[in-house]
Amino acid sequence: MAENDSKLKLLGTWASMYAIRVKIALNIKSLEYEYYEEPSEGNSELLLKSNPVHKKNPVLIHGEKPICESLIIVQYIDETWPSRGHAILPSDPYERAIARFWAAYIDEKWFPTVKDIGWAAWGEGEREEAKKAAMAPVDEGSVLLEEAFGKCSKRKPFFGGDQIGFLDIAMGTTVRWLKAFEKLWDVEILSEAKTPALLKWADNFCSHPAVKDVLPETEQLVEFALVIAAKLRAAAAAPPPK
Amino acid sequence: MAENDSKLKLLGTWASMYAIRVKIALNIKSLEYEYYEEPSEGNSELLLKSNPVHKKNPVLIHGEKPICESLIIVQYIDETWPSRGHAILPSDPYERAIARFWAAYIDEKWFPTVKDIGWAAWGEGEREEAKKAAMAPVDEGSVLLEEAFGKCSKRKPFFGGDQIGFLDIAMGTTVRWLKAFEKLWDVEILSEAKTPALLKWADNFCSHPAVKDVLPETEQLVEFALVIAAKLRAAAAAPPPK
Repeated sequence: MAENDSKLKLLGTWASMYAIRVKIALNIKSLEYEYYEEPSEGNSELLLKSNPVHKKNPVLIHGEKPICESLIIVQYIDETWPSRGHAILPSDPYERAIARFWAAYIDEKWFPTVKDIGWAAWGEGEREEAKKAAMAPVDEGSVLLEEAFGKCSKRKPFFGGDQIGFLDIAMGTTVRWLKAFEKLWDVEILSEAKTPALLKWADNFCSHPAVKDVLPETEQLVEFALVIAAKLRAAAAAPPPK
Repeated sequence: MAENDSKLKLLGTWASMYAIRVKIALNIKSLEYEYYEEPSEGNSELLLKSNPVHKKNPVLIHGEKPICESLIIVQYIDETWPSRGHAILPSDPYERAIARFWAAYIDEKWFPTVKDIGWAAWGEGEREEAKKAAMAPVDEGSVLLEEAFGKCSKRKPFFGGDQIGFLDIAMGTTVRWLKAFEKLWDVEILSEAKTPALLKWADNFCSHPAVKDVLPETEQLVEFALVIAAKLRAAAAAPPPK
């Protein structure tokens, strides 16, 4: 197991829900790591060298080996240190398949529809109507995730049962961003009326010991999103580069 | 292990590279299954019930449990029957992370660029120039995959070493489609000049005992693609539905 003792470095940005997934997995396993905050514009040399394909954070560097893509990193951490902390992936292969299915659904289908609300809320024309239309697929997805929570958690506090697991990490790292978007765009994504179980779960997740110190505050994300939006607007208004 | 003996049903379509991935994994583990060919238009009742979220094949039904998404199904099969046939995922967590990384790259980045050549080859205007532009990201990706093959295979015949593994299945099920597209669009995707190792690997893969009987012939895919393209053209030319 000597190799597993190699140093861990995490390259991330404070606001990235993907980097936060890795921080939570490392916390669950009580692993020490050096954290490197990536520059707010562009990428560090180390990141470009470590993830030349996607040029994105997070990257976990274990000894000399870079591992990329947040959910792949979380699985790597769980598989490399199976006996530290608690298991992140369910032990049952079917439950594991279900957790992977919903985690992919969140990243590839649902969260993109959440981000689309922004185009409606900050776009041209009939914003209220556009926002309403943009909320339809988000609500549809939230209801599916509410049902998935019921089935996965089996009346326990987390998707993973008594402890936070793979799907908690995948979904839970969206929560503060959801709250920021709710404030920014005056919408309701998780609510007592539509997703009562997820609303309670979100509170449980955000106050979990492996989570609470690595989540950014909603207000910080609101400010950050406003800065990004202003930059995007300025770029759209500027003449195209020659 | 009684539960693992439950009956297996696979819902797929003969031309789907995603369904073929599951057939290969089932072959590697010498598992018997009932195969249900989905209708060429629309989906069966059983598919809609089993995969209400994505409404797509393949779905593997194990006893009463449906598992969706090809790469998740392949992992499920490997994890449920670890001691049958050979291991599909590498045993080393880092090698496993690398296999997952490139499999996701193929599905999310590279293969979509391959399909984009079709828009150029069958589109309006300067087709040769458009095709050349569309080939640039495909070639860039092929070279990355050629390098990945060198690193993963360690001079052995497959990404998985001496045996076909997870990444062989993910990449290998594109091969006959690549050949069909090369014929249809008069392009070269894998070639002696650009990707000599992958070209040789593709032959090894397609003649592997777990693979050779479940791959469609290139000519069948060419004909199938022409039918689909004709339908798409007719739909585009038709007046929009009221």
